[in-house]
Amino acid sequence: MTESNRRILLASRPTGKPTAENFKLVSAPLPAPGEGEVLLRILFLSLDPYMRGRMNPGKSYAKPIEIGDVMEGGTVGRVVRSRHPDFAEGDVVLSHSGWESFAVAEGASLRKLDPSAAPVSTALGVLGMPGFTAYAGLLTIGQPKPGETVVVAAASGAVGSAVGQIAKIKGARAVGIAGGAEKCAFVRDELGFDAVVDHRAADFPAQLKAACPDGIDVYFENVGGPVWDAVFPLLNDFARVPVCGLIAQYNDAAPRPGPDRLPGVMREVLSRSLLIRGFIQREFSDQRPAFAKEVAAWIASGQVRYKEDIVDGLEAAPEAFIGLLDGRNFGKLVVRVAA
Amino acid sequence: MTESNRRILLASRPTGKPTAENFKLVSAPLPAPGEGEVLLRILFLSLDPYMRGRMNPGKSYAKPIEIGDVMEGGTVGRVVRSRHPDFAEGDVVLSHSGWESFAVAEGASLRKLDPSAAPVSTALGVLGMPGFTAYAGLLTIGQPKPGETVVVAAASGAVGSAVGQIAKIKGARAVGIAGGAEKCAFVRDELGFDAVVDHRAADFPAQLKAACPDGIDVYFENVGGPVWDAVFPLLNDFARVPVCGLIAQYNDAAPRPGPDRLPGVMREVLSRSLLIRGFIQREFSDQRPAFAKEVAAWIASGQVRYKEDIVDGLEAAPEAFIGLLDGRNFGKLVVRVAA
Repeated sequence: MTESNRRILLASRPTGKPTAENFKLVSAPLPAPGEGEVLLRILFLSLDPYMRGRMNPGKSYAKPIEIGDVMEGGTVGRVVRSRHPDFAEGDVVLSHSGWESFAVAEGASLRKLDPSAAPVSTALGVLGMPGFTAYAGLLTIGQPKPGETVVVAAASGAVGSAVGQIAKIKGARAVGIAGGAEKCAFVRDELGFDAVVDHRAADFPAQLKAACPDGIDVYFENVGGPVWDAVFPLLNDFARVPVCGLIAQYNDAAPRPGPDRLPGVMREVLSRSLLIRGFIQREFSDQRPAFAKEVAAWIASGQVRYKEDIVDGLEAAPEAFIGLLDGRNFGKLVVRVAA
Repeated sequence: MTESNRRILLASRPTGKPTAENFKLVSAPLPAPGEGEVLLRILFLSLDPYMRGRMNPGKSYAKPIEIGDVMEGGTVGRVVRSRHPDFAEGDVVLSHSGWESFAVAEGASLRKLDPSAAPVSTALGVLGMPGFTAYAGLLTIGQPKPGETVVVAAASGAVGSAVGQIAKIKGARAVGIAGGAEKCAFVRDELGFDAVVDHRAADFPAQLKAACPDGIDVYFENVGGPVWDAVFPLLNDFARVPVCGLIAQYNDAAPRPGPDRLPGVMREVLSRSLLIRGFIQREFSDQRPAFAKEVAAWIASGQVRYKEDIVDGLEAAPEAFIGLLDGRNFGKLVVRVAA
């Protein structure tokens, strides 16, 4: 049986929201692993907001994806052929193989997963990059103290759900922001946030204020846009704002019209002694072992719960990703590439 | 001999730039010290940019000055009558008495100065609040490392001159920004900055870029406005921006027109992992003893130099303060209230 590799390429750069035309599904022969490499059958592909940035030209914290290249992404795969002594056929590993059904990877770049310890897809979510982003950004930059108020948007998502639950473990009050009644109920009832506010409500700023009677001490920024506008006036003196994402503005194709809000924000940064700090999780990679141990224990104890939104088939990835940027996913978005 | 107290009050709140009409000079009887208090003859009054904020209504990091109240400010005074056991007639002290020629102060609020150790006016400058602002903000938030590039504006002023010189002591490269050839020459030749750029030059952004071939690692923000615009594109990944002042926008009477620069700034905060942190020096008051000891030693060794711009007579304070907001002072601005 000859199987071919299916790959999704960046066909063109989006202006504003990505569309199906920006992606191209192609077939290619199966790649052959060289010495020290393995051939992987991809089981799960992670879809994450940062990928929108990679579709743009120009410098960001990582190089852009070139047109014609396979879309980038974290993956879980099963070894189907190994030319590396540490990996055997059947091993399940974490890789960064991108949007394709098979991939060759260097053994040194892989981390072996234990399917008996946790569902392997969690290596892309709560126990992977998004969970670690929440853990490192909240604890290292946000530094929530007992009794403080921590606010996070996209609270039912991969990062936001972990932020709020870890904040609670640290004794803080967790206030989530989510879109729609179903997600809000999940954040409050399943994840155990102290309060949740629907950003689609007409009086969202007033509801957020009511949910934060003592102001906001940590705002974990992963959305930007109107949520920022509602949060900013509520920040207390010495509030900390880890900036992990800005999904609401990733599709911006042109500068926003005025007035220019920057001078006002800087004035408040000064008068309220605010901290604003952008970060990428890999800066904190020395905390990875502590993260893996602590969060696994919190999952086992029920203190951290998670939700996955799994879509089937590599070909479904573009549409699912476009929906992610509109908040249409419910939980950590993962593509099941192979059963 | 009966002497009266001269006081400068806030007569009205400015819209935009303050004018002479916003201030009112009045005479009042000499106040009498109560138990535990002293009567001070003010020798020196410090004029500082933060005072502009106090003239506005509404919440900032301190309460506004009320209309009809004496203008606020740091002062050096000589005790002329004491009802506090720790102070004798003739003692020279640091107080926060405001724009007046005599004042009553609680003994507990005063710090005794040693006129033989340093000119007492330096307690308002390099050895006082501005010097401490530079020291604490640069070292605690900016954290310059050897070989890094530190940029500061108003580099001939009280805070900026200390920032650059302390950066050099820590092994960093100091790049100053100042207005006009005379100030620039002073910053380079007298203060020993590695480079200096005149913000009035038509090609200021290009000159700044040329002066920072390795980018900027620490930008000590005390001005805002067009200097920020030139600095921001040059910030390196993981750059730190202590925000200590925004003198260029203190006189803004209305929001600036668009485009809205905030989304672009936040995007760069994220993609370059920038730190922006507002602060007021009193947050770091536990570092005061270390500051006093270290900076005194640096002055003694010639590693830190300073320049004072002394104007004579309390009645000159309003005009001098208005000039300060336009950068017309040259060095730390101090009013000699009495000889």
